[in-house]
Amino acid sequence: MFKKTLIAVSLAATSLASTSVLALEKVDLLIKNATVLTMDQEKTVFNNGLVAVKENKIFAVTDGSDVKDYLAAKVIDANGDIVLPGLINTHTHVSMTVFRSMADDVPDRLHRYIFPLEKKLVSRDMVRIGAQLGNVEMLKGGVTTYADMYYFEDEVAKTVDQIGMRAVLGETVIKFPVADAANADEGIQYALDFIKEYKDHPRITPAFAPHAPYTNTTETLQKITKLSLEHDVPVMIHLAESERENQVIAERSGGKTPVGYMADIGALTPNLVGAHVINVDDNDIALLKKHDVGIAHNMSANIKSAKGVSPALKMFDDGLRIGLGTDGPMSGNTISTIDEFNQVAKVHKLVNKDRAAMPPMKVIEMATIGAARALHMEDTIGSLETGKLADIIIIDTTAPNMVPVYNPYSALVYSAYATNVKHTIVAGKLLMEDRNMLTVDEDAIREEALKFADKVRKTVVESGEVVQ
Amino acid sequence: MFKKTLIAVSLAATSLASTSVLALEKVDLLIKNATVLTMDQEKTVFNNGLVAVKENKIFAVTDGSDVKDYLAAKVIDANGDIVLPGLINTHTHVSMTVFRSMADDVPDRLHRYIFPLEKKLVSRDMVRIGAQLGNVEMLKGGVTTYADMYYFEDEVAKTVDQIGMRAVLGETVIKFPVADAANADEGIQYALDFIKEYKDHPRITPAFAPHAPYTNTTETLQKITKLSLEHDVPVMIHLAESERENQVIAERSGGKTPVGYMADIGALTPNLVGAHVINVDDNDIALLKKHDVGIAHNMSANIKSAKGVSPALKMFDDGLRIGLGTDGPMSGNTISTIDEFNQVAKVHKLVNKDRAAMPPMKVIEMATIGAARALHMEDTIGSLETGKLADIIIIDTTAPNMVPVYNPYSALVYSAYATNVKHTIVAGKLLMEDRNMLTVDEDAIREEALKFADKVRKTVVESGEVVQ
Repeated sequence: MFKKTLIAVSLAATSLASTSVLALEKVDLLIKNATVLTMDQEKTVFNNGLVAVKENKIFAVTDGSDVKDYLAAKVIDANGDIVLPGLINTHTHVSMTVFRSMADDVPDRLHRYIFPLEKKLVSRDMVRIGAQLGNVEMLKGGVTTYADMYYFEDEVAKTVDQIGMRAVLGETVIKFPVADAANADEGIQYALDFIKEYKDHPRITPAFAPHAPYTNTTETLQKITKLSLEHDVPVMIHLAESERENQVIAERSGGKTPVGYMADIGALTPNLVGAHVINVDDNDIALLKKHDVGIAHNMSANIKSAKGVSPALKMFDDGLRIGLGTDGPMSGNTISTIDEFNQVAKVHKLVNKDRAAMPPMKVIEMATIGAARALHMEDTIGSLETGKLADIIIIDTTAPNMVPVYNPYSALVYSAYATNVKHTIVAGKLLMEDRNMLTVDEDAIREEALKFADKVRKTVVESGEVVQ
Repeated sequence: MFKKTLIAVSLAATSLASTSVLALEKVDLLIKNATVLTMDQEKTVFNNGLVAVKENKIFAVTDGSDVKDYLAAKVIDANGDIVLPGLINTHTHVSMTVFRSMADDVPDRLHRYIFPLEKKLVSRDMVRIGAQLGNVEMLKGGVTTYADMYYFEDEVAKTVDQIGMRAVLGETVIKFPVADAANADEGIQYALDFIKEYKDHPRITPAFAPHAPYTNTTETLQKITKLSLEHDVPVMIHLAESERENQVIAERSGGKTPVGYMADIGALTPNLVGAHVINVDDNDIALLKKHDVGIAHNMSANIKSAKGVSPALKMFDDGLRIGLGTDGPMSGNTISTIDEFNQVAKVHKLVNKDRAAMPPMKVIEMATIGAARALHMEDTIGSLETGKLADIIIIDTTAPNMVPVYNPYSALVYSAYATNVKHTIVAGKLLMEDRNMLTVDEDAIREEALKFADKVRKTVVESGEVVQ
């Protein structure tokens, strides 16, 4: 706002005769007549507000009274629709879309089903095809930034670059042989090469992704911690997720919890993002806070696998860095953060036996600025404020499930579908307009995914080797 | 199938010269190339099947090998999409759409907020406007039949008649003055008049809806039970839902549970449909089974209000008549049954600590034939079988969240949005085609609802009398 006023004044001073024209602020995109949820510190809401975008950044967010001061290359009249920061999915495995709806309810599924399945089918092609499909699903569901953990992350990176989204991409490190590495050290080297290649990309943050504490050795975890600090990149890990993890880590560490063990070995740093974080006690929570660790809360996947409910509400209220994630499409199973809203709000009420617990405002906070904090990106994304990157979504409020809107937070959390997202903007660029993808060919992506699914069916499902 | 063969043979016998033409079976609607989930006794699935419709009934459901035997006035090529019976929402308050997103998380909300709100604003107009909006939402979400409890149900009936849906409409009886009756006896008379008017409607079943055991006297409950048996109409009631109900009924009955009390006073009959049924013990469940009572399971609303989780899985496994409901739009808050699927599957896994509990097949059963059984309508709706009423929905499997489909039940339960419903057919008539409403003007309905919402805002929200 300050900048805008300055310019207007200076133009007016130099050419009084044509003030009315010259005083106009030229912007690339203007969203007007919007219910703007800024998600700034004060949770400012503008009922008839505007958001102005210049290049890849937010130039102004106002109550709309200055709407006539802008000359915009592109104008979106929101006509009362809800405008909020792009959603940030703090945890997924995007390429696994191609396996979705297989063997959903198999006990001990990760070890009995998913790891063997991946051994057979993970490849560069699979990663690319799955990521393309998942990117479309997320972008159409209002996700503008996501954090991914998988193999061949350089393939995921290419798809993110192409579609125009923002992502933190973690290359997996795990102690047994996988598709892109024979052991943990090869995984680390793969990650280092990937980090080198993408370290300066404007929208992609390369990262390490040690699978979990119990599927890596102490030495590997310490090595990654050291490298992540040297290269200043994130480390994403599944943390305090399962009983099996509890047992293995307790045996390894003389009875420690996974978080306690990670603290002991020096692996809790501000670069770490832990996914799930279900099995934690008050001491663990204090450790996570002390070390400024980010946390991805994946309600839908955690209750589907009957793993339990993370004390996410307590961690949020205690000021930890925590945001919503969907987990992968074999786990959640959809990967649009909006699909979590309803369950996050309601299941925390259920387990806290309090209908006032986890109100919609907190859910939206955990999907936007909270998720940005979880990824340590709150300085650049997560709220609509002047100077931040222009990652913005617009929610259609004319769909019958969204009528009427007395409280926009409630409407988003209790009523909205991912398909109610009308436009998605990343770095100031419209990537989805009126639900049409502008940077990729959705039909071609679907056809390729369906073709790959046929291969999956033939090689796995029909062989009978894997339980359906 | 039997009938079809007979006709073809007889035609062939009378006119050998034109067998190839005359042998064609004339039908009104043919859905071909479909993944058909019949939800019949054997849960038959046809991967490339067809459904043929004549007038308002299903004429044939086959594996598709006989597709060339039909001459159809209208053909829908499903192109692999999922076809299943229309969803049956066993419990809602459709007209309350106009209040959606108000004061969602207020403790003791029904008594502190909703009853006072209704006292101010319920009217014939409100009931009509809200029902029109809710009908569109449900039909677009694949609900072909719903069970409603509210006031001025004759107004709801008019909207159902117009749009072409199927419904069981229960006129509320409650002991305090409400918009359409000064007391319970007036409510009963209102219901009797409504029953008289709609008793022979082909798609509308009029019913009594005593609000709950604790909001009616024993005498009223007994009177309604007697009248419902005389008139052969359903009785819908909120049952075993809240702590307040437990307390009032225990005081009234010398310590009985709500279900035990209802059994004692003779109010458990095969005409009864109880909504919620959360606070029940094994004895209560046995009573509900013995008296053949129908049950509406409303997961989403029950956890949002922190009331707890109904033992719906146990009741289903014990063979009780139980189906999914959404509760009203101030409670759930959306009213498409698809929105329940995810939560029903996952929350039962969570509370049972078993990821194999409540598999997708059971969820779909509780949304279709199970829900039909809950409403005692399983002879006419709830599955795709020859001779049943042609209530059918088609789910788009090209949307990114629905790709790929290895298991159609999993895809529906864990991935589908209400907006993935592509076509909705009731009584053989297409009511929504490619997401366009064919029998009502969706825009006009929305505009009227928004206008009413402005009135609500002015008279209630802005007055500050009601907590927002």
